[in-house]
Amino acid sequence: MSSTHILIALLAGATVVNVGAAPPTSKAPPIMVEAQGSFAVGGTVVQSPGTYELGKSGPAGQTLHGDHARVTYQIPVGARKLPLVMWHGFGQFSKTWETTPDGREGFDTIFLRRRFPVYLVDQPRRGGAGRSTVPAQLAAEPDEQRWFNVFRLGVWPDLYPGVQFSKDPEALNQYFRQMVPDTGPLDSKVAIAAVAALFARIGPGILVTHSFSGGPGWQVAIENPAIRGIVSFEPGSGFVFPQGEVPATVPSLTGPLAGVPVALEQFKRLTRIPIVIYYGDNIPLQPSTDPGQDNWRVRLAMARLWVDAVNRHGGDARLVHLPDVGIKGNTHFPFSDLNNVQVADQMQGFLSGKGLD
Amino acid sequence: MSSTHILIALLAGATVVNVGAAPPTSKAPPIMVEAQGSFAVGGTVVQSPGTYELGKSGPAGQTLHGDHARVTYQIPVGARKLPLVMWHGFGQFSKTWETTPDGREGFDTIFLRRRFPVYLVDQPRRGGAGRSTVPAQLAAEPDEQRWFNVFRLGVWPDLYPGVQFSKDPEALNQYFRQMVPDTGPLDSKVAIAAVAALFARIGPGILVTHSFSGGPGWQVAIENPAIRGIVSFEPGSGFVFPQGEVPATVPSLTGPLAGVPVALEQFKRLTRIPIVIYYGDNIPLQPSTDPGQDNWRVRLAMARLWVDAVNRHGGDARLVHLPDVGIKGNTHFPFSDLNNVQVADQMQGFLSGKGLD
Repeated sequence: MSSTHILIALLAGATVVNVGAAPPTSKAPPIMVEAQGSFAVGGTVVQSPGTYELGKSGPAGQTLHGDHARVTYQIPVGARKLPLVMWHGFGQFSKTWETTPDGREGFDTIFLRRRFPVYLVDQPRRGGAGRSTVPAQLAAEPDEQRWFNVFRLGVWPDLYPGVQFSKDPEALNQYFRQMVPDTGPLDSKVAIAAVAALFARIGPGILVTHSFSGGPGWQVAIENPAIRGIVSFEPGSGFVFPQGEVPATVPSLTGPLAGVPVALEQFKRLTRIPIVIYYGDNIPLQPSTDPGQDNWRVRLAMARLWVDAVNRHGGDARLVHLPDVGIKGNTHFPFSDLNNVQVADQMQGFLSGKGLD
Repeated sequence: MSSTHILIALLAGATVVNVGAAPPTSKAPPIMVEAQGSFAVGGTVVQSPGTYELGKSGPAGQTLHGDHARVTYQIPVGARKLPLVMWHGFGQFSKTWETTPDGREGFDTIFLRRRFPVYLVDQPRRGGAGRSTVPAQLAAEPDEQRWFNVFRLGVWPDLYPGVQFSKDPEALNQYFRQMVPDTGPLDSKVAIAAVAALFARIGPGILVTHSFSGGPGWQVAIENPAIRGIVSFEPGSGFVFPQGEVPATVPSLTGPLAGVPVALEQFKRLTRIPIVIYYGDNIPLQPSTDPGQDNWRVRLAMARLWVDAVNRHGGDARLVHLPDVGIKGNTHFPFSDLNNVQVADQMQGFLSGKGLD
């Protein structure tokens, strides 16, 4: 089916009912789960001035618990020692790591089957961590053609040739519906505090970040030595550098990208753990007239400088541009692309090589 | 620990870090999971006027997929035939059915262990189904003392004597944090359409509702014959009656409660499936000065009239006021209270008696 057909199918009617979708069954062997559950972690409590009186309406004297992270977890039978803590990117929530848009197993179940304990995070003010201590206005403004481009599925309405994304219109329907709004101002400090509290609760583990959570992820690892390794998929901003070593801010079609200065002492904490960064395909070396491509061109370049800085200070960071190792066609979501088992194998190879499995 | 201590612990500091919380482990036997995953179902697509142009900002010509439900599911090995579809209440999301506030297994895992396929719903514009096609303002207004009362934990700051809710302050912390805001206008019709689409996708099953979803739950069952039975915990409003048989609207301290007229033909569809309704403890027979108690007094009374109406028309509905069968101390959330295994046994007894297991 051509991309034009996808557009027509999407816009043909107001209501999309998934009557024809594949039933949720699997032919893989059963998963042996030792324990599973969910909890909130971190966050704050605010209280309105005044005194609460039974039966009286209004906030006087009442409290609001908010700004926590929501966490779901699964511990397999015969679990490996270090859990994977998976943290979504911008506009996303834990769904990022679950069933792929085309209905296959996501990284949560793939790594659970490989006997890793898996924790999925909804960062504060997102998804199941919706209670914000700060008000918000939600615009419900249509924006999906832009994301189709920025997430490098293609140039709307055409998928890139050879892209690892299903041509089934239902896959794109599911993909768009996995976005959720911020229910309060997007605040990295609030998110960092909640994820640091998660590691304080569960102890040593491996942090897996995506896109927007890449930058806050470095900050959590600076703050909390329980993080024993980081796997970062397409980190988008917040690259921290030692003061005095911050590279020049670079312009792009989606705005300038700047490094973030931190004290050398803090930066050096990132040199004590193995780190790997993955980027997918369709990222050019030269400036592009396509905002999606140009956006990731400058980020990939900044990530290379960042890896160099970590290693220059004695660290163990590696950047893998997936096409360079023969893995082609990946979008901004390599972990849910059609070849996500191959990407999981890459990631597990890294963990294994560093003794993190 | 006294309830006063709970209050002090809650308000002592702005940040609550769960460092001391119990590790998420279990001594129960492993759970054998055949398949697990998540998907969006139902919903609509809106499009802004104009033409989308690559690199141009603004909504012109762009789409937004919203108003779907988010669904997570687990299918156990050796699954029973009919899945349980669990639908949360007001201000809540799928978390309702997961790990209890005091850290024990919720109805999702309890019934998964009992070999029921379990589907958890986030209704449109809630939690992981956050994309709304209609804008919203989120006030972040403190309101938890009111919920403490309306959800019948007690009279703030005191828990009811003998209530089935943990005295550990961390349980109340978790309980408050399982609330999420509406990310768009609360619209029963939108929710009904999405849950009906879910049953159209998965086929026959048993609907489990709570509080606010009770009323829309009757409507989905009218619409979709795939619903083979309903278990409703403390339905809060939207009791449907045949035209001409709607009981008088009853006043309460939290406002009037009215029945909802539907065509006799529609109502009669509810007489073709087994239905059970459960209410917990601390609901008085006479008007109360406590809004929480008075709120549920009129709802329990309306539910009795509703069950009578269903049975008068040849149906099979039963109302179980849990204290009447010796199950004491339950709040508005019997499925996550301290005695939730006992409540699960009650529910499974009903399913078994009706051949629904």
